[in-house]
Amino acid sequence: MKEWGYKILVLRIGHRPERDKRVTTHVGLVARAFGADGVLIDADDESVMKSLLKVVESWGGPFTVKVGVNPISFIKMWKEGGGEVIHLTMYGLNLPDVIDEIRSSPKDKLIVVGAEKVPWKYYLLADWNVAIGNQPHSEVAALAVFLKELTRDWVFRAQFKDAKLKVCPSPKGKKVIRLI
Amino acid sequence: MKEWGYKILVLRIGHRPERDKRVTTHVGLVARAFGADGVLIDADDESVMKSLLKVVESWGGPFTVKVGVNPISFIKMWKEGGGEVIHLTMYGLNLPDVIDEIRSSPKDKLIVVGAEKVPWKYYLLADWNVAIGNQPHSEVAALAVFLKELTRDWVFRAQFKDAKLKVCPSPKGKKVIRLI
Repeated sequence: MKEWGYKILVLRIGHRPERDKRVTTHVGLVARAFGADGVLIDADDESVMKSLLKVVESWGGPFTVKVGVNPISFIKMWKEGGGEVIHLTMYGLNLPDVIDEIRSSPKDKLIVVGAEKVPWKYYLLADWNVAIGNQPHSEVAALAVFLKELTRDWVFRAQFKDAKLKVCPSPKGKKVIRLI
Repeated sequence: MKEWGYKILVLRIGHRPERDKRVTTHVGLVARAFGADGVLIDADDESVMKSLLKVVESWGGPFTVKVGVNPISFIKMWKEGGGEVIHLTMYGLNLPDVIDEIRSSPKDKLIVVGAEKVPWKYYLLADWNVAIGNQPHSEVAALAVFLKELTRDWVFRAQFKDAKLKVCPSPKGKKVIRLI
């Protein structure tokens, strides 16, 4: 459990292994880097799982990856267990109008991000439908901005356990320290 | 020219049409939604250009898309013309340490985002190498967070000309107004 005292999981829905591998991998990497505890993917895609676990292996964790999740069953179970559900969508209420209330609620948070067309039922199941502006852009961008605000910029003070590699910020070039 | 008084362009490098179509499309959509004036792509990919221009057609502009750009020549020309170059990379200096200086400089800004391996020369050509945290994540996420901070949250007050569609933010469901 990180400094905010609740669990944050990201649920990626509508993943099509034949065309979404890279975008879904980005969703998972953003989830980890910006403070979520894990990512769940609705399709069974071993290659995306392997890519994400390889990053955890090198750059540290904890961060869980689960594939082949039934999203509606999972959301219902999450809500029955006392968690809340935040669906990121360009049609929702804008982040600045809702983030204080979401951040201060002590409930565990499941953040749902879709691919192109999200079925209607997700809008109804969500406790919050939240927009990062009301223009079409990207679920990867929406997740990053949402998590950055939710966690009050944790991405800039992030610490991971059992990391083998660590970057030293540099004005020109790449400085990487091997820790193990 | 938007409220900040300088031009912002995004240059996407390392685009491989066979595998990066969706991620590069997300880069372009984020550029537009978060306040950039246009996107330049180093490979000649008509399908990505078409997807982006379709969004401009429905949701408004102005926003320019150019493909098949020689990135090194363009960067050199940009600098000779008095513009500055910001390369987003996990190895760079962190955003909070540099954003005030970048924001207050009146120079036109070219934001360079790469795919997996960015050649060394870009690190040297850039006036700024900027990190959104020093963990591996996503150029789409990095671009969104960078532009959001640069433009002081313009994404939430964005206005586009000649839009045919506009969203009314809604707690449940989708409300879209057709303007033309």
